[in-house]
Amino acid sequence: MRLSQFHLATVKEVPADAEIASHRLMLRAGMIRKLASGLYTWTPLGLRVLRKVENVVREEMNRAGAIELLMPAVQPKELWEETGRWEKFGGQLLKIRDRKDQEFCFGPTHEEVITDFARNELKSYKQLPVNFYQIQTKFRDEIRPRFGVMRAREFLMKDAYSFHLSPESLGDTYGAMYQAYSRIFERLGLSFRAVQADTGAIGGNASHEFQVLADSGEDAIAFSDDSDYAANIEKAEALAPAIQRPAPQAPLKRVDTPRQKTIAEVSAFLGVSPQQCIKTLLLRGREGLVALCLRGDHELNEVKAGKLAELADEPVLATEEEILAATGTRPGFIGPVGLPETIPVIVDRSAAVLADFVCGGNADGTHYTGANWERDARTTRVDDIRQVVEGDPSPDGHGTLRLARGIEVGHIFQLGQKYAQALGATVLDDQGKAQVMLMGCYGIGVSRIVAAAIEQSHDEAGIIWPETMSPWRVAVCVINPKNLPDVRDAAENLYRKLEERGIETVLDDRGLRPGQMFADLELIGVPHRVVVSERGLAAGTLEYRRRSESENRAITEDELFTLLAQK
Amino acid sequence: MRLSQFHLATVKEVPADAEIASHRLMLRAGMIRKLASGLYTWTPLGLRVLRKVENVVREEMNRAGAIELLMPAVQPKELWEETGRWEKFGGQLLKIRDRKDQEFCFGPTHEEVITDFARNELKSYKQLPVNFYQIQTKFRDEIRPRFGVMRAREFLMKDAYSFHLSPESLGDTYGAMYQAYSRIFERLGLSFRAVQADTGAIGGNASHEFQVLADSGEDAIAFSDDSDYAANIEKAEALAPAIQRPAPQAPLKRVDTPRQKTIAEVSAFLGVSPQQCIKTLLLRGREGLVALCLRGDHELNEVKAGKLAELADEPVLATEEEILAATGTRPGFIGPVGLPETIPVIVDRSAAVLADFVCGGNADGTHYTGANWERDARTTRVDDIRQVVEGDPSPDGHGTLRLARGIEVGHIFQLGQKYAQALGATVLDDQGKAQVMLMGCYGIGVSRIVAAAIEQSHDEAGIIWPETMSPWRVAVCVINPKNLPDVRDAAENLYRKLEERGIETVLDDRGLRPGQMFADLELIGVPHRVVVSERGLAAGTLEYRRRSESENRAITEDELFTLLAQK
Repeated sequence: MRLSQFHLATVKEVPADAEIASHRLMLRAGMIRKLASGLYTWTPLGLRVLRKVENVVREEMNRAGAIELLMPAVQPKELWEETGRWEKFGGQLLKIRDRKDQEFCFGPTHEEVITDFARNELKSYKQLPVNFYQIQTKFRDEIRPRFGVMRAREFLMKDAYSFHLSPESLGDTYGAMYQAYSRIFERLGLSFRAVQADTGAIGGNASHEFQVLADSGEDAIAFSDDSDYAANIEKAEALAPAIQRPAPQAPLKRVDTPRQKTIAEVSAFLGVSPQQCIKTLLLRGREGLVALCLRGDHELNEVKAGKLAELADEPVLATEEEILAATGTRPGFIGPVGLPETIPVIVDRSAAVLADFVCGGNADGTHYTGANWERDARTTRVDDIRQVVEGDPSPDGHGTLRLARGIEVGHIFQLGQKYAQALGATVLDDQGKAQVMLMGCYGIGVSRIVAAAIEQSHDEAGIIWPETMSPWRVAVCVINPKNLPDVRDAAENLYRKLEERGIETVLDDRGLRPGQMFADLELIGVPHRVVVSERGLAAGTLEYRRRSESENRAITEDELFTLLAQK
Repeated sequence: MRLSQFHLATVKEVPADAEIASHRLMLRAGMIRKLASGLYTWTPLGLRVLRKVENVVREEMNRAGAIELLMPAVQPKELWEETGRWEKFGGQLLKIRDRKDQEFCFGPTHEEVITDFARNELKSYKQLPVNFYQIQTKFRDEIRPRFGVMRAREFLMKDAYSFHLSPESLGDTYGAMYQAYSRIFERLGLSFRAVQADTGAIGGNASHEFQVLADSGEDAIAFSDDSDYAANIEKAEALAPAIQRPAPQAPLKRVDTPRQKTIAEVSAFLGVSPQQCIKTLLLRGREGLVALCLRGDHELNEVKAGKLAELADEPVLATEEEILAATGTRPGFIGPVGLPETIPVIVDRSAAVLADFVCGGNADGTHYTGANWERDARTTRVDDIRQVVEGDPSPDGHGTLRLARGIEVGHIFQLGQKYAQALGATVLDDQGKAQVMLMGCYGIGVSRIVAAAIEQSHDEAGIIWPETMSPWRVAVCVINPKNLPDVRDAAENLYRKLEERGIETVLDDRGLRPGQMFADLELIGVPHRVVVSERGLAAGTLEYRRRSESENRAITEDELFTLLAQK
């Protein structure tokens, strides 16, 4: 591609609401332009990158035996009512009325449509297993679209759905998708981890997320320093400490702690460590309030809490009024000692092994010291309800946990019969009996991958693309082509040779000053840059620079070809 | 592709509402499945064809220097209000409210979005000309979706938009697009015509439609038998007859014609030819009724009528009540003689050269004979308001017109400044002065092409694909692979050799009976079929059949390769 015939439009200023590096750099490089909140035009430059990702995804899906189709973006309400998701999906579902006042949605996902397709298409176990996928524009009406294409409303997604007669077959395809996803992210040159994940609103049994590692990631992941174990922190189990709870030593004693509400305040005031304090949270349960007790230095894991029988799916903290009404005490002074009998007390495993601890006094401005489980405080149940922290033992028994930030770019699920049951998707088995199919579903955020790659790899000057994702592998810069026909011809020659070898090359023939040219090419992140100049021509060399390095080197044309052939 | 690992699902029965061949055959072949009215899933088989069309379109657009980008499907109301089309576009515009009650539409076309993009991106004449395109899912809320993907609500479209400083530059790109479109339809193996077209609701100056010729086409096109002239019948000019109007011979005479209302009835009743009668239509004009007079055997061209200053854009026939109120006469007996002075009389060129004609008597149950223009009937203006018919002289002066039916698959427009003016899209010219840009727009109905190709080429057994559009070029059938390992191995071998030569091949290894296999392959329209059988293996030959022919022939493997290399 000759840059003079392309629409490259880098910009200097980006809006202040571009909070993360990928958003800023995609705007600066001119890869995307905002049309409205959460809606972006992919410019010619951005689309080149997006299509590269799309093609790698398609190749690997085909290689794994998945079959591509294309479902409508607009989906009828009736199907979503069959699974109950028309209401349950919430505000992210963009609902539409057509001119005949029939209701539809702009599909955020396609479980309903594919299961409807499958119940009509698949009649016999002989047609199974089968794995259908599509690469398609989806829409989620995010309440707060942000981070550019990372959390846009309209986005490109690859979604696959597999159908099976047995859990073993589902497991096989799930495994094949796990492998295909790993190959996809490897080929794209991303540093990623496959982590165990919560199945959330989609439902089902097993689930893995594919997380691109980046400090700006919205997800926290935990992984072992000595094994393959990795999980979303939402899902990572905190094991029970390997110690027995010591016997009580101290007497229970109420102390005045005026205005000392937080663990930090109380521990400093009383001169004890946070690890020796109990943090008591009151949440709104299915039947009145529920108390959750954690060690002072630990945080509640809301996903784990949401799975407690006593709590609803989305745990909510009780309000000050509710707490006051139930306990007669304001928040900050609640503790398990003497809490009303109607409130269940669920104690985290790490909190359960404490003795002689500090906790709220259930009277404003007081705490207890020397408190002990059983002797002083009632325990309804001990459970795993906290976030893991760095240094926790790995749940698989090997090594200790480390934490990292990740950007979720893929998610695979074993759905089981959830959707097939709701929609009555059955096939006849080898005995001629109708069986509800099992399903898996497998998603990749194609447009999000582009942003995630930038989060993972950039510097002050701009994007540093992995080779497979870059708009072009090589940039050839011509210095002063108008006045130096020899230089121009040499550059044209080199450009032609590179293209003939199948190396995607951009020729910067815009006639800009070198500084401007280099700034643009560094910003858009082309991995290899060569400069054809009068001086180099005289010396028989090209000025070469790898985007990820900071030094130029003079190399010959043959050396350039060798270098490019290596990768 | 091995058919055993593909999802092929041909069906016997299709719904009665599948009115045209392509709709029936796409359902029978299992290329599409209906999700809801005007919404179709493209099955793996259908998508293979759709992608082939898409790829040819993309290659030729790139070759013509157009640059691909991708705009959002969902577009904000505000932009459509800037051009006035939020209201004017009508019911086909699918309007959406998001969770914040902001209004959007699911884009049926992208003039507004691209012009907004251009006004932000393009600053200088040096950036022009530029031609942006995208291939994207569009939505039109058709009042009566029908004919499968031919008139679906959701469809795949290629839309391109070019920007210019001068009409000459616009003309150049328009010409390049005309050539690119011609190459696209040639490469796709379609019989088509580029015809002059009305610019309709999109607006602008010059316009051509690309029509795939097929008897079932919704459009009528007129073309010369002796020149390149071709036009949509909406647009085709009917020249004035080369004769002078004869002088009046007969006296004006009112005759009783009880219950004789139509031209056919009146001409039979009076024993004169329809060509000697005047048909008078009363239409609702901008200021009261307007009379249009045509020769009895001619039909009104509504597009031409819509352009008359006296009529609105969409001409509407007056109701019986309106006619009665204005003339005191019921429809069927209206004529130009003695019509109230307030009603303009616009006479078609061919009607204007009649003398001694028959026309309505402006009194129920009567007509005039021997009527003449000027002597008896007032003429406000003579104009071209009729449809051309077979045998009319070609408007370019060469040959006579023939008529054919066509399916519109492409449309190119010189828009001029319509959108750029409305949205204030200017660039600085070489004098540093802001100039409103000129625009062209260029559309191709990618999914519609698939249906149009089938309309043009099919038989009782199914689809007959042009080679470039077929899901596969060659089908290799194996007879009884389970029991005949030699046959199976030979077929596998042949399949591998074909694939190695880059010839897209499907191996029918499903183990069906030959009749079933052949019926499926004929239905899905694969151009070349070879059968590997025990008998053929013994003779060293393959049984070959071209889809478009009715006879098998025994050929060697080498002969097969030669044959496939020819095309």
